[in-house]
Amino acid sequence: MLDLQRFRAILFDMDGVLYRGSMLLPGVHELLAYCDEHNIAYACVTNNSTLTAEQYETKLADMGVHIQSVHIVTSSVATRRYLAQHVPRNTGIYYIGMKGLQQALFEDGYYVYTEENPAYVVVGADFELTYAKLRTACLAIRAGAQFIGTNPDTTFPSEAGIIPGAGSILALLRSATDVEPFIIGKPAPTMFQTASTILNAQPSETLVVGDRLDTDIAGAHAANMSSVLVFTGVTNAETLTQSEVQPDEVLADLPALLTRWKTLVEKSPS
Amino acid sequence: MLDLQRFRAILFDMDGVLYRGSMLLPGVHELLAYCDEHNIAYACVTNNSTLTAEQYETKLADMGVHIQSVHIVTSSVATRRYLAQHVPRNTGIYYIGMKGLQQALFEDGYYVYTEENPAYVVVGADFELTYAKLRTACLAIRAGAQFIGTNPDTTFPSEAGIIPGAGSILALLRSATDVEPFIIGKPAPTMFQTASTILNAQPSETLVVGDRLDTDIAGAHAANMSSVLVFTGVTNAETLTQSEVQPDEVLADLPALLTRWKTLVEKSPS
Repeated sequence: MLDLQRFRAILFDMDGVLYRGSMLLPGVHELLAYCDEHNIAYACVTNNSTLTAEQYETKLADMGVHIQSVHIVTSSVATRRYLAQHVPRNTGIYYIGMKGLQQALFEDGYYVYTEENPAYVVVGADFELTYAKLRTACLAIRAGAQFIGTNPDTTFPSEAGIIPGAGSILALLRSATDVEPFIIGKPAPTMFQTASTILNAQPSETLVVGDRLDTDIAGAHAANMSSVLVFTGVTNAETLTQSEVQPDEVLADLPALLTRWKTLVEKSPS
Repeated sequence: MLDLQRFRAILFDMDGVLYRGSMLLPGVHELLAYCDEHNIAYACVTNNSTLTAEQYETKLADMGVHIQSVHIVTSSVATRRYLAQHVPRNTGIYYIGMKGLQQALFEDGYYVYTEENPAYVVVGADFELTYAKLRTACLAIRAGAQFIGTNPDTTFPSEAGIIPGAGSILALLRSATDVEPFIIGKPAPTMFQTASTILNAQPSETLVVGDRLDTDIAGAHAANMSSVLVFTGVTNAETLTQSEVQPDEVLADLPALLTRWKTLVEKSPS
């Protein structure tokens, strides 16, 4: 069993962990209050690059959960922070994506949007994708621009059904350029690493709580973080049994996680 | 060496065999005249699904070569003929593509264009691609529509450089649906089979003349047809040596092919 006492930070996946659709899941308020009391930092992480952190802050607030946007790390936010560590100011970047990515990349004026000879091409889900955008990205990558994908999810859930996501746009550009994108979102480690850095925690001090084995738990492994799987999302006991990817601990839901944590602390000699 | 006398039909790849760009290559008039004289049928084949057969007829006529559009088999034309053999009249089809595909599929009113519950989704290169088109295709394929690709070429040459082609749009939809498309164009055999049927020739009586190993020659193999590689296009002696795919015969150009044919016939005892 995990020694929960060593964690100074928690990264929560959102859909399937904190809420489902627009319905808050049980135990969120109690767990976050416990974290606040015991100086355990936390952030919400999501591969969805289309919305801004502020839009997620509002979505959570509408469900009565108040988390500041600085503690909401989308793959767009993580992409921008990754670039800030590797790419100088005023570099020209072309992007395919929605407002979440556009704002993260360009709102502060640090980088310059360009269609002409960009040094980087950043690609996320784009519901206004056109051939002209794909053409510009393809020519730039073929001319040597670095190719970055916000997240690898090939599909996106919508009311009409399952529709193409960032990963399938990446598949098109990979096919047209023979260049592999560098991926920021889970199961790649960069987004989780970014979030723990924001919380001033080392990977060894950071716990990932997620509902998906192939993204949350695999991403935690890649980032050298411990992980808890909860059954409030897409994974059930049967799929867990069949998976090669295994979390460090499995719990029914957030109330079970809080109970585990409290029990452990009460038992602790310190 | 190939016994050229057994061939009753020739399938010519166009770019790199009959012309380069808009420049006619040497020997085309002489070879076609020889074919006409000796009752050797011929057709032109191309994976390009964006132009109509009539547009190719005009392009060839502008270079002084007169080939009727019925003997120009694009991957769009082959797709329509393939469907006619397998799919009943009035079937609903959704397509992603340009005029060449739209005309081949719908101009005669045999099939019905629909975005709602199509039985087939046919995808070619589309320079006016939008997310809405990809979304419609993705939902239809996920709902069970048969998925057909006109041709697998991942890129398309343009004046600006190499841009995304049909095959990369197929890669996006494959990624978003986990469904493999059925491919009509070379190196798959269907387009070559269609063209030989139009010429009333058996595969064993049909010779493919091409400049690309991975499409023309591989497609001839898949269709059980013999093949001649000419060096007037993208392949040179070095790439030929390194290739696993080998033609039945290699010749410098069309004048060399005509000389070979004439020599053989003159030597023939019959």
